[in-house]
Amino acid sequence: MTAGEKMVIIDGLTLSNWNRELLLELHKGQVTCVHVCVALWETARETLSKIGHWYRFIEENSDLVMLVRKGEDISKAQSLGKVGLILGTQNASPLEDDLSLVEVFSELGVKIMQLTYNNQNLIGSSCYEQTDTGLSRFGRLVIEEMNRVGMIVDLSHVGDRTTLDAIEHSSRPVTISHANPAWIYPSRRNKSKEVLTALRDRGGVLGLCLYPYLMNGAQTTMDEFCDMVAQTVEFMGAEQVALGTDLTLNWGEDFLKWMRMGRWTHKVDYGAGSAANPSWPEWPTWFQGPSDFPGVAVALLSKGFSKNEVNAVMGGNWQRFYTEGFQAEKEINVCV
Amino acid sequence: MTAGEKMVIIDGLTLSNWNRELLLELHKGQVTCVHVCVALWETARETLSKIGHWYRFIEENSDLVMLVRKGEDISKAQSLGKVGLILGTQNASPLEDDLSLVEVFSELGVKIMQLTYNNQNLIGSSCYEQTDTGLSRFGRLVIEEMNRVGMIVDLSHVGDRTTLDAIEHSSRPVTISHANPAWIYPSRRNKSKEVLTALRDRGGVLGLCLYPYLMNGAQTTMDEFCDMVAQTVEFMGAEQVALGTDLTLNWGEDFLKWMRMGRWTHKVDYGAGSAANPSWPEWPTWFQGPSDFPGVAVALLSKGFSKNEVNAVMGGNWQRFYTEGFQAEKEINVCV
Repeated sequence: MTAGEKMVIIDGLTLSNWNRELLLELHKGQVTCVHVCVALWETARETLSKIGHWYRFIEENSDLVMLVRKGEDISKAQSLGKVGLILGTQNASPLEDDLSLVEVFSELGVKIMQLTYNNQNLIGSSCYEQTDTGLSRFGRLVIEEMNRVGMIVDLSHVGDRTTLDAIEHSSRPVTISHANPAWIYPSRRNKSKEVLTALRDRGGVLGLCLYPYLMNGAQTTMDEFCDMVAQTVEFMGAEQVALGTDLTLNWGEDFLKWMRMGRWTHKVDYGAGSAANPSWPEWPTWFQGPSDFPGVAVALLSKGFSKNEVNAVMGGNWQRFYTEGFQAEKEINVCV
Repeated sequence: MTAGEKMVIIDGLTLSNWNRELLLELHKGQVTCVHVCVALWETARETLSKIGHWYRFIEENSDLVMLVRKGEDISKAQSLGKVGLILGTQNASPLEDDLSLVEVFSELGVKIMQLTYNNQNLIGSSCYEQTDTGLSRFGRLVIEEMNRVGMIVDLSHVGDRTTLDAIEHSSRPVTISHANPAWIYPSRRNKSKEVLTALRDRGGVLGLCLYPYLMNGAQTTMDEFCDMVAQTVEFMGAEQVALGTDLTLNWGEDFLKWMRMGRWTHKVDYGAGSAANPSWPEWPTWFQGPSDFPGVAVALLSKGFSKNEVNAVMGGNWQRFYTEGFQAEKEINVCV
C-alpha cells in the first residue's frame, strides 16, 4: 500500500459484545466494515428487540458507525470515516416457519443469514448433527426468497450435505463467512475439500476464521495463519478468500451458555470447545482484537502476497461480494 | 379541475380486505394513495406476518401498487400511475412494551400508528373506556420516539384526555385520521370541539369519516356529508380537513368479531355499531367504494368550495401532512 491509498478492511463475522470502546478499536484497526451477529437462537420476536437495540447503538454512536444495507453504504462509510455495520443472524430461527419473514428481516437490514446454527432446524442440519438430511422443503423456498430479496446465504455452521444442497440450490453465490479448511485444521466446524470446491465453483467467498478452537488454539502463530491463507488462496483463488474473525470480545459465561446451549439442552454442550477447554478461548497474542488487523495485512505482504491480493483478502472481496449479494434480484435485472 | 390537471385523491384510513379487484377499483376512482390498516389487536410477532403478507401483496400486484414510505413516494406513485399504499396500525399493540420497536416498525414502513384501538393499553385510554387516565409514562416516550423517527401519531379511537395529552406532548402535528365532529354526529368515536380545537391549533389534520355508524347510517345523503365538510372546514380551516373513509369492504363476520372483540372479551362488543345494528354497516348509495371518490369531489365543487379547497380536502392536505410527518426528525433538521 502506498501512502494515501486506504485499504478496505472488512471482518466477515464477529460475535463480540459491542460497546463504544470496541468501536474505537475498530477505528484504530482501520476497519471499514463488520458483519455483526444479531441472533443465535432467537425467535422472530426476540430478534426484533435485538434489532431495535442495534438501531439504538448505532444512533447513539453515529459519530463512529453507520448501518450498511447495500454496497454503496460501504463506500459511504469509508468516505465518512465511519465503520459500517452489517446486521446478520447465525441462525434462521428468526424466520420461524414464516417464509414472508425473509423479506421482513431484509427490510430491517438483516442482509446475511446463516441457515443453521449448531442444531438441525426447519431448513437443514448443522455440522454437529449425526445425520444431515440436507436442505428441507422449506429450506429450498427460504433460499429462493433470500436470492430474490438480496439476503446472503451463510453456511459456516451448516452440515456438509445441507451446505452442498444449498450451494447447488442457490441461484446466487453464497458464503462460508467464518471457517477454515478442515484438511489444515481438523474440526467439525471446518470445511472439507468437497464443500470448498463447490463453494469456489459457484463464485462463493470463504472467510478464514481466527477463532482459536478452529486453529491450533492461542499458540497458532501469525506465520501459520498466513500459511493457511496461502494454501486456501491456492485452492480457492485470491478473489474468493477473505477474513471472518468470529471475535467474541467482552462476553461472560452467561452468553457462552446461551451461545452453546440456547434453550435446547440442559446439559453442557461445548460447541467448538471441549471439556478440556470449556470456556471462551484465549486468542493469539498477534490477534487480540480489531486493532490487530493492519498487522495481519503486513504479515501477508511479507509472506509474498501481492498488494492486490492482500487488498482482496483483507476486505476487497467482501466489498465486491456484499455489493452484489445485497442487491434484490430485480435490481440486478435492471442493471443487465 | 381543468383538463390535464390531476387531482390527488388520498384515503386517510381504510380497513378493507384487499385484493386485486379492489386495487382496480382504486384506479377507477383515481385514488393516488391509501393508508391501509395492518394491525388492530396484533402482537409484535403477529404484525410481522401481516407486514410480510402486505409486502407479498404489493409485489404480486406491482403493476398497480407500490409501498409509500416517504412523501416523494406519493408523487412517484402518481407519476407511475400506481396507487401508493401507506402501512399503519390502529393500535400500539405491535410495540408491546418495547420502546425500540417504534423504530423497527418504522423501518418496515409502518409510518402511522394509532395510540389505542378501542381499549386502554400501555400508552393510554380509548374513547370507549369509562375513565381515561391520559397518556401513560410509556406513552409519552412512545410519542417522543414516533416524533424522532417520523411515524405519525393517529388519535382516531383514542379517548379525549389521552388525545389532549398526546396533542400537547407531541412536538410534531398529529392526526385524527377517521372521525367526525361529535356536535354534528354524536358518537363516542366522534370528536368534541375541545379536541378538534387542540388538533387544529397544533397543525393537525382531521380525516372526515364515511363509516356509516359515525354519521346517520346509510341514509346519510351526499349533501349532508358535504354540509359536514363545510362546517368542519369553517372550524378547522380548509388546510386541515381531509378524508378517511374507514372503508371495510370484503370482510365477513369473523373479521368483524376480531375487530370488535380481539382476544380481550368473550362477550359481544359492538364498537361503533349497536345491538340494533350488530353487523357490518350498509354504506350510502353514493359511496360504495373507492370508485365513488370523484363523485364526492364533484359534489364539494357544487357545494361552493373552490377548486383549491376541494384539492386540499380530497388529498392535498394528506400529501403535505404525510410528506412532513414521515420525515425523521434529523432529516428535517438538515433542511432547516
